[in-house]
Amino acid sequence: MEIIQSKDNNLIKETKKLKEKRYRTERKQFLVEGFRFVEEALKSSFKIPYLFLSEDAMDRWQSFNLEGKLQDSTKVYIVSESIFRLLSSTETPQGIIAVVCQDKAALEDKDGFYILADKLQDPGNMGTIIRSAHAAGAAGVIVTKGTVDVYNEKTLRSTMGSIFNIPIIEDVDLKITDCLKTKGFKLIVSSLEDSKNFYDTDLNQNIIIAVGNEGSGISQEIYKLADIKVKIPMPGNAESLNAGAAASIMLFEIVRQKLTIAN
Amino acid sequence: MEIIQSKDNNLIKETKKLKEKRYRTERKQFLVEGFRFVEEALKSSFKIPYLFLSEDAMDRWQSFNLEGKLQDSTKVYIVSESIFRLLSSTETPQGIIAVVCQDKAALEDKDGFYILADKLQDPGNMGTIIRSAHAAGAAGVIVTKGTVDVYNEKTLRSTMGSIFNIPIIEDVDLKITDCLKTKGFKLIVSSLEDSKNFYDTDLNQNIIIAVGNEGSGISQEIYKLADIKVKIPMPGNAESLNAGAAASIMLFEIVRQKLTIAN
Repeated sequence: MEIIQSKDNNLIKETKKLKEKRYRTERKQFLVEGFRFVEEALKSSFKIPYLFLSEDAMDRWQSFNLEGKLQDSTKVYIVSESIFRLLSSTETPQGIIAVVCQDKAALEDKDGFYILADKLQDPGNMGTIIRSAHAAGAAGVIVTKGTVDVYNEKTLRSTMGSIFNIPIIEDVDLKITDCLKTKGFKLIVSSLEDSKNFYDTDLNQNIIIAVGNEGSGISQEIYKLADIKVKIPMPGNAESLNAGAAASIMLFEIVRQKLTIAN
Repeated sequence: MEIIQSKDNNLIKETKKLKEKRYRTERKQFLVEGFRFVEEALKSSFKIPYLFLSEDAMDRWQSFNLEGKLQDSTKVYIVSESIFRLLSSTETPQGIIAVVCQDKAALEDKDGFYILADKLQDPGNMGTIIRSAHAAGAAGVIVTKGTVDVYNEKTLRSTMGSIFNIPIIEDVDLKITDCLKTKGFKLIVSSLEDSKNFYDTDLNQNIIIAVGNEGSGISQEIYKLADIKVKIPMPGNAESLNAGAAASIMLFEIVRQKLTIAN
């Protein structure tokens, strides 16, 4: 453990930059805050080069016994509360922040299902989708260009640790989606027109389920690539569902169908 | 239309109080902000005694043609932008706010299903549940004591207008839930122990589905009243689901089962 006493320390300045999306993207690193969340990160396959601890958080550091859970290459720095606040994004910081390197999510050549987030904007929805996809046993979460940053603080928080348990695949030019389609994956989009009842769709095959932007729905690009257009029936006549809710409903209908066939 | 020029005007002072929960509860009124949302309110069965319009929002007032959609008893007041900001809860206000009276949601004596929100804390989750319940065609949303205020600005916003389309039933002492159980409604709670697979449960009967607090789950009170304990299978081994997602998954499994039996 080392002590950093100056807010002008280079590592502090560089770490602080990770609060901005462009630096997260450039360096493929992000920040994780809070004892439980950092503990999850340390247990995961994600590499953690640095960890910052506020000097008044030593008690919790002991009680969480993180010393014994550190990765071999993790360096721990103790800082004053005022320096810690420069790095923190919360109003009442717990006193621990880790710099985490994004895991390289390679597309594995296996059967299964993916969820594709198409220009989603709300961090809470994005986090919920990652969490539900993990719970459902999805092979990964595909994220198109224009979607909210998966590594921003609000999204991370609402994944409740699932960020470390499911591959996140950024598909800037839709080549990955195309590639999966070539391999036989069917792209399912929900649409309000000309669509079949979602529950009549055979989901026990290799599929990608797309969910669209909160305001404008599925983009034209993705819509054109669709193999199957479905609609979740809404007997209550609401206009639409929350994007995170719609994704979760579809993901767990996959779970249900797979269980039904397995039994 | 009248003009209010002083921020010390009594109606302004009283309306401003509705930003606080205790006044909303006491007066059974709440605030709705934004043109589209106010339009939904005017179309609904909810009574709107007052409507405040910022003087620089007259163009949008014309283009939305709300003049022709007013309820007979609605009084419209024009105020300066600085007075409007006293009433508004948003950073970039659209310039319209309505005072809305809560609708008296009486328990109707009919078959169907309810969702019960048990000490939920997150306004976004609460809003999502109301929206999904409306979409699924639920008979109502039951809210226990200790649950986030349904009429706070964030919850209202995330219901996307569904607040006006489904009865919200506050069940302070659980008498309503008891009463429904006496009438034959089965209370279903999700639990991680001793539970049957949710998808093996017959949902095509009169039921109440309970969702619990984000951190601590279903309360002991509700758990004790449960007729059926279920678990949503999670093949991906996540610990839990987001409360709004779990509620939506369960609500739409009801939809699916009802459709399957109807066909």
